[in-house]
Amino acid sequence: MTQLDIAKNGVLTNELIRCAEIEEIEVDKLRRLVAEGVVVIPKNKLHNVKKPVAIGSGLSVKVNANIGTSVGYSSIQEEIEKLKVALDAGADTVMVLSTWGNLSEMRRVLVKESYVPVGSVPIYDSAVKAFNEKKNVVDFSESDFIDMVLQHAEDGVDFMTIHVGITKGVLEKSKNSKRIMKIVSRGGAIIAGWMIKNNKENPFYKNFDEILKIAKEYDITLSLGDGMRPGALVDATDVQQLEELFYMQELVEKAYAEGVQVMLEGPGHVPLNEIEMNVKLMKKIGLGRPIFLLGPLPTDRGMGHDHIVSAIGGALAGYYGCDFLCYVTPAEHIGLPDVSEVREGVIASKIAATVADVARGLPKALRLEKQMAIARRNFDWTEMFKLAIDGEKSKKKYEAMNYTDEGCSMCGPFCAIKVTRDYMEDKTQCTTK
Amino acid sequence: MTQLDIAKNGVLTNELIRCAEIEEIEVDKLRRLVAEGVVVIPKNKLHNVKKPVAIGSGLSVKVNANIGTSVGYSSIQEEIEKLKVALDAGADTVMVLSTWGNLSEMRRVLVKESYVPVGSVPIYDSAVKAFNEKKNVVDFSESDFIDMVLQHAEDGVDFMTIHVGITKGVLEKSKNSKRIMKIVSRGGAIIAGWMIKNNKENPFYKNFDEILKIAKEYDITLSLGDGMRPGALVDATDVQQLEELFYMQELVEKAYAEGVQVMLEGPGHVPLNEIEMNVKLMKKIGLGRPIFLLGPLPTDRGMGHDHIVSAIGGALAGYYGCDFLCYVTPAEHIGLPDVSEVREGVIASKIAATVADVARGLPKALRLEKQMAIARRNFDWTEMFKLAIDGEKSKKKYEAMNYTDEGCSMCGPFCAIKVTRDYMEDKTQCTTK
Repeated sequence: MTQLDIAKNGVLTNELIRCAEIEEIEVDKLRRLVAEGVVVIPKNKLHNVKKPVAIGSGLSVKVNANIGTSVGYSSIQEEIEKLKVALDAGADTVMVLSTWGNLSEMRRVLVKESYVPVGSVPIYDSAVKAFNEKKNVVDFSESDFIDMVLQHAEDGVDFMTIHVGITKGVLEKSKNSKRIMKIVSRGGAIIAGWMIKNNKENPFYKNFDEILKIAKEYDITLSLGDGMRPGALVDATDVQQLEELFYMQELVEKAYAEGVQVMLEGPGHVPLNEIEMNVKLMKKIGLGRPIFLLGPLPTDRGMGHDHIVSAIGGALAGYYGCDFLCYVTPAEHIGLPDVSEVREGVIASKIAATVADVARGLPKALRLEKQMAIARRNFDWTEMFKLAIDGEKSKKKYEAMNYTDEGCSMCGPFCAIKVTRDYMEDKTQCTTK
Repeated sequence: MTQLDIAKNGVLTNELIRCAEIEEIEVDKLRRLVAEGVVVIPKNKLHNVKKPVAIGSGLSVKVNANIGTSVGYSSIQEEIEKLKVALDAGADTVMVLSTWGNLSEMRRVLVKESYVPVGSVPIYDSAVKAFNEKKNVVDFSESDFIDMVLQHAEDGVDFMTIHVGITKGVLEKSKNSKRIMKIVSRGGAIIAGWMIKNNKENPFYKNFDEILKIAKEYDITLSLGDGMRPGALVDATDVQQLEELFYMQELVEKAYAEGVQVMLEGPGHVPLNEIEMNVKLMKKIGLGRPIFLLGPLPTDRGMGHDHIVSAIGGALAGYYGCDFLCYVTPAEHIGLPDVSEVREGVIASKIAATVADVARGLPKALRLEKQMAIARRNFDWTEMFKLAIDGEKSKKKYEAMNYTDEGCSMCGPFCAIKVTRDYMEDKTQCTTK
């Protein structure tokens, strides 16, 4: 039985109990949210997830980090390093998106190394296999679609992106579209290419029942991928994007009936003024299922700093109800991120998630903000570094300044907190709790 | 006559004509906005501002970078370097906030070096003078307040922060406040300390007419400082902050009657869900005057990455009508920023300003986004780096990857744009304009 089935039956799993503790939410309330399908707990039966994560309505916003090899880069050591850095920086999940080297073996190693849920995109493997056999990247068979899903399930992956909404109908509509960038989803483009070349329906859509069987057996959470997500700001929120989304509703219902956990993936490149609408529409059409956004990026001109661009969009999306942010690194749109860029990406997304949690008034988030204010008021640097999202970096900078007086080198003797304390307050430590 | 007086008289200044070109706005429309006081063009008569800037309603969001020395750090060479880096990165103005070394001399050098408007906070000089004379930082006379404003005007400063709203009434109310951090504004704390120690009204408030005379003579734009801005997220949008704001309205009216340009400064630390309210309230009470925000920071836990935190808040504030963003560097709350942190701060704020301009639908901002989409679609890296807010960094990363095929090292042969082009599009260059 899946986490969803068990919750429907009123039983508490170890993962559910642990997640309720982390979220500071009453355990039966969390069970009900899982039973309703509006919260998922991704966990493959074969994967020992030591730090489970609950994603969805009413919970803190979660962060996913993408790692994985690419053409010419396939060091498993470097991927393990990326995994460690991402987890240390606070990633709640990782997706292994390798397209170079021994994919299955690397996946198994990373699943074993990861104490958080691991995601993947099975269709990549088919394209890589075709490419390695010197064929076009869309030259593989219909059964490969299903085989790859099963392979990933056996490798222990906890959630998988299945680009199930790119149907013939959606592609037909997109033919005469005014989009500047027709498809920017790697998986989406491969499936669309396969469909056009073979003149066949999307096998994930056609064989969705079979996918559900595998997902049910291993308790894979399906992440319904948005192959048609806009890839440029000027293409945002167009008919193709929405057509694909509309196909999701029946799939959400089918999965729920089978006891399979699902979430919905979303854009992408979205102007700030359209983020609220996008999130609310996804929640509405997706029947309240958890939403997993890549970004969103509210400008295309932030190359080299897309972690910042994505933090802006992610914070606002989280505030409006997005549950799960896929990080974006400074290397996005330029090349494969290195280890330090993975770290920067996770930190930026954690900041966005924190901003959203605070804005949504989550008690835990507000308590941490108050503790930080008190630490700053008391010049308690140790406590500040403990409460900071990235205490490591801020401590390093502070120590490098070698400023020994109270306060810091920014204001020196003119520190507002010191001046205020001297003239407006008693001089005891602030103990407000 | 000031830019405001001249605009009221229906005459076009060179600065106004140049700003209209930059903003791509009809010149007489811009003149009317200046004449109404809802747009300012800061320019001291003594400063040759080669790149003037118009700030306010209907225009693109502007970015200010703070530079300046602090205790133990007073290299004019390093400050000139910070100025250059800030301008290269796209800062629209700089504020010189030095508190160490020969302040007036340094200011004059930086004003001369700067082709954009320069701002300052005159009250710092009084505190620094007192400190250097081994007195308490609030030990100076009432006339020093006015003298320092005159000194800064003669040094060629284009806009000045005057913490005029911290009145006795506001301080009285703040006595029993529940704020964790009573005052975090450096200038605000010094003035409040002075007022309490001397049991006198705020000299800027009491002698506002005299300040206006100086401002009128040199055409200084007054930036009405928010000494009571909240300095911790949990202190945001409280009565003290709003009381001070409410005092601004009469001052805005007085300044307008005298032909003096003004803008309003604002917080600070504000949760994401209160940014819209803060901006709209400031616009309403401030009679539509330009708004200049420090941040805002929607979490206090981003230490070491407060440029990202501030980009989140600034983008949303800009979307809701904030006109002018004061940058925040990664060093904020830790120490004085170095040259590279100044650069990072400006870039993050420029990203926020760009996101806001796009969300507000400014035609120029949308045109650049479209050009970027086309460049990406065509794999035109030269054009991408030209359109990027930080082309320098993205070019460096791209070249370091040494990836020679079309696309980039992220997706390699599985690049969605390539796959889409092979199966869904004709293979010619995209020329949509």
